[in-house]
Amino acid sequence: MDERLKKQTDFILEIDKEKNILRQTHLSGHGRRENDAEHAWHMAIMAYLLKEYANDDIDIGKVMIMCLIHDVVEIDAGDTYAYDAVNLKTQKAREDAAKERLYSILPADQKEELMAIFDEFEENETAEARFAHAMDNFQPLLLNDSNGGGDWREHGVSAEQVYGRQRKTRLGSEYLYEVTDEIVKKHIRDGNLKN
Amino acid sequence: MDERLKKQTDFILEIDKEKNILRQTHLSGHGRRENDAEHAWHMAIMAYLLKEYANDDIDIGKVMIMCLIHDVVEIDAGDTYAYDAVNLKTQKAREDAAKERLYSILPADQKEELMAIFDEFEENETAEARFAHAMDNFQPLLLNDSNGGGDWREHGVSAEQVYGRQRKTRLGSEYLYEVTDEIVKKHIRDGNLKN
Repeated sequence: MDERLKKQTDFILEIDKEKNILRQTHLSGHGRRENDAEHAWHMAIMAYLLKEYANDDIDIGKVMIMCLIHDVVEIDAGDTYAYDAVNLKTQKAREDAAKERLYSILPADQKEELMAIFDEFEENETAEARFAHAMDNFQPLLLNDSNGGGDWREHGVSAEQVYGRQRKTRLGSEYLYEVTDEIVKKHIRDGNLKN
Repeated sequence: MDERLKKQTDFILEIDKEKNILRQTHLSGHGRRENDAEHAWHMAIMAYLLKEYANDDIDIGKVMIMCLIHDVVEIDAGDTYAYDAVNLKTQKAREDAAKERLYSILPADQKEELMAIFDEFEENETAEARFAHAMDNFQPLLLNDSNGGGDWREHGVSAEQVYGRQRKTRLGSEYLYEVTDEIVKKHIRDGNLKN
């Protein structure tokens, strides 16, 4: 194995740890907590299946790799729950340090390439990044909806908090935002979200 | 939510079950058993990072979606261990029935599209399918190698069995096959594979 492949396989083994980073979302059927790798797998398939709803033309290969790697930084930085105001303040600094350490395992050209894809996701200005963000929101919404909104009840989440986050879905897909809005309104009526 | 999106989200929720289908491979660091969704996530990222080693030009977006969905059938059919001669005999019939049931949840055009991608993977004749198969072999090889070959020892696997399976890697990538061969030879010397 030459030096280049050694660096690539070192990175591949390092990201195996993402399978142990747990999220607050539970699997459908009132299952266990989901991990980051499962979430990313689900998002990438959803992007492929739902691409017709993107507001703009998207390069679906780009969206898929963006979905697949967007949470790699959480191996060091941990998962920050979308409605955890305290930890959200330090999230960027923790994730920047993680990004530098993790992607530096790769050969220099691939470090640069994957960091650029991650930064594009974070900046959320391209059509691909916006659609990937729509998936990042819609995936846990579907799981949580299938479980009767239990993840929101457990954390006492408010409708205002959910709308604050789901606003990003609209930038990627007007239609999926309309559907999100229907689902959220149902959970407000049912008392699963504080109004 | 219109009827088309309802079918798509029904499928998205159905494949959530893939996160509970356990494989025989263990996570690195002598971790727990890996599930199919994690394996597919890992394979798709590996395909992206290692595409330079493909024998032929490949459409990487196609390879990624192929990797991501190739094990969906195991939701019904279960995981068939690569060295389980008895269950390998019935694998195709079980997976064909699963394919029909699962992909029929989607709108007709997407059912056809995803079944075609799955069939292309299974037939293993295109450059994309061959590279996806190389990833399907190389991913558990790296994990098992990182764990000192424990998965092979546990099942009493022979070198002949491993070579029988790894032959497919050569069709997708000569270089990754050479590296595979080095790794397998090391495990034969170390007594982790029966000779």
